[in-house]
Amino acid sequence: MNPQSQNLTWHHGKFSSEEREAKLKQKGCVLWLTGLSGSGKSTIAREVECALLEQGKNAYVLDGDNIRHGLNSNLGFSPEDRKENIRRIGEVAKLFCEAGVIVITAFISPYRSDRDLARNLVPSDRFFEIYCAASVDECEKRDPKGLYQKARKGEIPEFTGISAPYEAPLKAELILETGRESLTESTEKVLKRLQQARMI
Amino acid sequence: MNPQSQNLTWHHGKFSSEEREAKLKQKGCVLWLTGLSGSGKSTIAREVECALLEQGKNAYVLDGDNIRHGLNSNLGFSPEDRKENIRRIGEVAKLFCEAGVIVITAFISPYRSDRDLARNLVPSDRFFEIYCAASVDECEKRDPKGLYQKARKGEIPEFTGISAPYEAPLKAELILETGRESLTESTEKVLKRLQQARMI
Repeated sequence: MNPQSQNLTWHHGKFSSEEREAKLKQKGCVLWLTGLSGSGKSTIAREVECALLEQGKNAYVLDGDNIRHGLNSNLGFSPEDRKENIRRIGEVAKLFCEAGVIVITAFISPYRSDRDLARNLVPSDRFFEIYCAASVDECEKRDPKGLYQKARKGEIPEFTGISAPYEAPLKAELILETGRESLTESTEKVLKRLQQARMI
Repeated sequence: MNPQSQNLTWHHGKFSSEEREAKLKQKGCVLWLTGLSGSGKSTIAREVECALLEQGKNAYVLDGDNIRHGLNSNLGFSPEDRKENIRRIGEVAKLFCEAGVIVITAFISPYRSDRDLARNLVPSDRFFEIYCAASVDECEKRDPKGLYQKARKGEIPEFTGISAPYEAPLKAELILETGRESLTESTEKVLKRLQQARMI
């Protein structure tokens, strides 16, 4: 490339993460929601996203709606595909985090090893594992999509919490008692946790 | 979930794209750079990213550095894997666009059909195919990574422009004559095109 003219003031090359965050007045991080089907992950994710957007912060939810039909539309539900599903989500979350976005993932992600892989992709202070801790009983009572009923009838094989394991986080950055607390309470806890960590 | 308390003012549920963009004071779009190896895609992408960040706009580059070692680390160079490589990049670009980020992709992406797939994932006014139009001769003279030399010796099979086809865009939103114009000229053209389209 030819030499650049001298009358341009922009920074050439790549911005460092710090410079990017200073320009955007925002830090990127990953809020990794995990929990059983029906434990409130997507609802809380959307609520936190809205609350952050109201503050002018760019927050973005990755969930089944925009991932399973898009990036991961070529994956099924075999053990390998489930692992690859979470791996790709972790990699995309990393990209958003680097871009300076608060990315909120809402997937059951039942295995500790898969969640740890996602955790290890970003700086340790930028990953928040948030456990939506409603029990099987609580989720099954609620059963918003009728999935537990189907799973009990054996119509859904390997359903997390019924016929497949869920490995609860051992050291989550935040636990939400989504079986008992309100959406507002859970949302406020998340925002408070972000403030505590000086992410917002 | 329990009813929400009345003293909270945030918008419940999902923000529309318009509401999100109003909050962020920024529109998301995809700048899809395409062209031969050595045609300047990554360099221009980084420069445009910096110029936009200087304006306080969130722009983010997807290129080999952050994609091939991460999300697409399990893909090789077979025709199917190359197609899947571009498909995933298109899907990730779509997510960034929805998040309200100006995402700049810098991949050879030699096939029209693959680029059209990426184009069709986002609203038509949000996709800018930007052709870095340096010729094989110009790129080969430059050969910053010595790849053309290797390809001529047959050490790299199916090298775009030498032993594999490059399908030039037929209706690019912008053509950069990167064999002749300076980095600054190319960057300014991209910014001007974005202004013209009222993206910035």
